Amino acid sequence: MQVGIVIFPSKKLQDFANSYRKRYDSKYSLIPPHLTLKAAFETNEEQLVEISAKLEEIAKRHEPFELRTNKISSFHPVNNVIYLKVEPTAELEGLFKELNSGSFGNPPEYAFVPHITIGQSLSNSEHADVFSQLRLQKIEHTETIDRFHLLYQLDNGIWNVYETFLLGK
Amino acid sequence: MQVGIVIFPSKKLQDFANSYRKRYDSKYSLIPPHLTLKAAFETNEEQLVEISAKLEEIAKRHEPFELRTNKISSFHPVNNVIYLKVEPTAELEGLFKELNSGSFGNPPEYAFVPHITIGQSLSNSEHADVFSQLRLQKIEHTETIDRFHLLYQLDNGIWNVYETFLLGK
Repeated sequence: MQVGIVIFPSKKLQDFANSYRKRYDSKYSLIPPHLTLKAAFETNEEQLVEISAKLEEIAKRHEPFELRTNKISSFHPVNNVIYLKVEPTAELEGLFKELNSGSFGNPPEYAFVPHITIGQSLSNSEHADVFSQLRLQKIEHTETIDRFHLLYQLDNGIWNVYETFLLGK
Repeated sequence: MQVGIVIFPSKKLQDFANSYRKRYDSKYSLIPPHLTLKAAFETNEEQLVEISAKLEEIAKRHEPFELRTNKISSFHPVNNVIYLKVEPTAELEGLFKELNSGSFGNPPEYAFVPHITIGQSLSNSEHADVFSQLRLQKIEHTETIDRFHLLYQLDNGIWNVYETFLLGK
């Protein structure tokens, strides 16, 4: 099965992100708004138990931290993904690094640019049109993140939560 | 915000339930297949922290248990819900009772009939048609349940997981 590790921000920030995702994100119905800490990788149910145990240890070693977002950015021209830019912090980068280190395998394909996707699978002209409106949007939001989630994907493509891990506990 | 407490069965059982839900369940896209332990109730973010603390205590006092389903049933004529019938066990009933006792408020409206919904919002004739086919289906499935989930509902109607609670830990 496919699994992945994400942060779900507060309900408030998810509702805000969904107001865009509904129109612009092809994966709107498959997963709630999230910040990916470890991209999807293949595993099985036995390994899932070991992964959980490792994640519990990692969560204990990292404290809750502030997540701040203040603008909408895009990965264009690499791809046409539009996202809420999340300010990099030492805590977030430390967590990302440990979740993507050797012992887990599946090292990341890209440098870590913390973000919450709000648009994807847009054509070049759609992207240009949507992003030209959204890039000027003023956002100022800070919240505390105290957990992350291990997800698995069902056969219909929808992601469900296997387990929550509380930071610093 | 609306919150609720559910058991998500294994991916295997969820995929099986979804094969029916896709056609027959009006809430297919809002929540993965689940067994409701406590129906949706209204709360706020501060109370959510207290609820989590209580749920952690309750989870510790209950051990993992076997979930067995062997037939498809219906609540008709009370309503046109078709479901995987889950065999009642002392463990499941004990957990339900504690999650629906006075300290949580919101006592249940119905007696506890453990089930995983696979069809709802069906007209009488649709219900009769679908159920006449499904009632004869032979199912024999047993699995271990070692966790339950506290969910909250986003503004778009989709449920997300706030926290997982591991039984007996």
